[in-house]
Amino acid sequence: MVRNLCEQAFDTPAPETPPGLPLLPVCGAALFDDRGRVLVCKRPEGKFLGGLWEFPGGKVESGESPEYALMRELREELGIEVRPCCFTPGGFVSHAYDEFHMILMLFICRIWRGVPQGLEGQEIRWAALTELSRLDMVPADLPLIPQLEAIVG
Amino acid sequence: MVRNLCEQAFDTPAPETPPGLPLLPVCGAALFDDRGRVLVCKRPEGKFLGGLWEFPGGKVESGESPEYALMRELREELGIEVRPCCFTPGGFVSHAYDEFHMILMLFICRIWRGVPQGLEGQEIRWAALTELSRLDMVPADLPLIPQLEAIVG
Repeated sequence: MVRNLCEQAFDTPAPETPPGLPLLPVCGAALFDDRGRVLVCKRPEGKFLGGLWEFPGGKVESGESPEYALMRELREELGIEVRPCCFTPGGFVSHAYDEFHMILMLFICRIWRGVPQGLEGQEIRWAALTELSRLDMVPADLPLIPQLEAIVG
Repeated sequence: MVRNLCEQAFDTPAPETPPGLPLLPVCGAALFDDRGRVLVCKRPEGKFLGGLWEFPGGKVESGESPEYALMRELREELGIEVRPCCFTPGGFVSHAYDEFHMILMLFICRIWRGVPQGLEGQEIRWAALTELSRLDMVPADLPLIPQLEAIVG
């Protein structure tokens, strides 16, 4: 089926010009606890994609590495301390929004200091990997689930 | 062992300022043939990291999506036509060089038109996934091998 869809794609010519959107680099964390559960956060109602679950993280600001940005975001959002050497890649997503093209890099992290709390008022929960596909997650995070399952095993 | 190294990392304070390097988004392709082998290219001698093997691909230029850039690069480097809908994520690398911080997104692709050729004079070869770790690959590509193995299975 996938093969057929891809074969069909060659019936139309390739786009001649690039999409012209700025790239937006974003980092995310798959924080795993000792029971193999992963932390997800609920986006506040009223915000863009409000009420949907997502991996914690955020934009990589100018001059930051993805790892530095994630360390900062986890401190701000969850009040925990992490170290970039404890990160391993857990998958990525390339996703076009109307105004920008997001590149989301998800890092697996199993070691941190502190107890994660929703410091920005967001609800948080620990979920088994098999539960993630039943949560209402932000669409851009969905392709991360099979990648994470493959990598974590 | 990994746990111990990570625990030790907390003995030193987190860096207070971001590294200050510009991000360089790069795309790569894991082209798989019907026998499950993947294509790698040898960087020309005399060039930066010359003589080492790498996945085909290159920089994502301003205004390009990673997928568009990869379509362009594969046309220029190998003379094949691909379509972004046939790409699936195969892993990523975040790697600091002296002058920039590279974000490399590797896309798996199994369907293309044409026969891959080294149009820029580069040697190319098809390798089993298990062979990749025995090739001299560019250091930044090495973390992609276990991710690709996990995802392709």
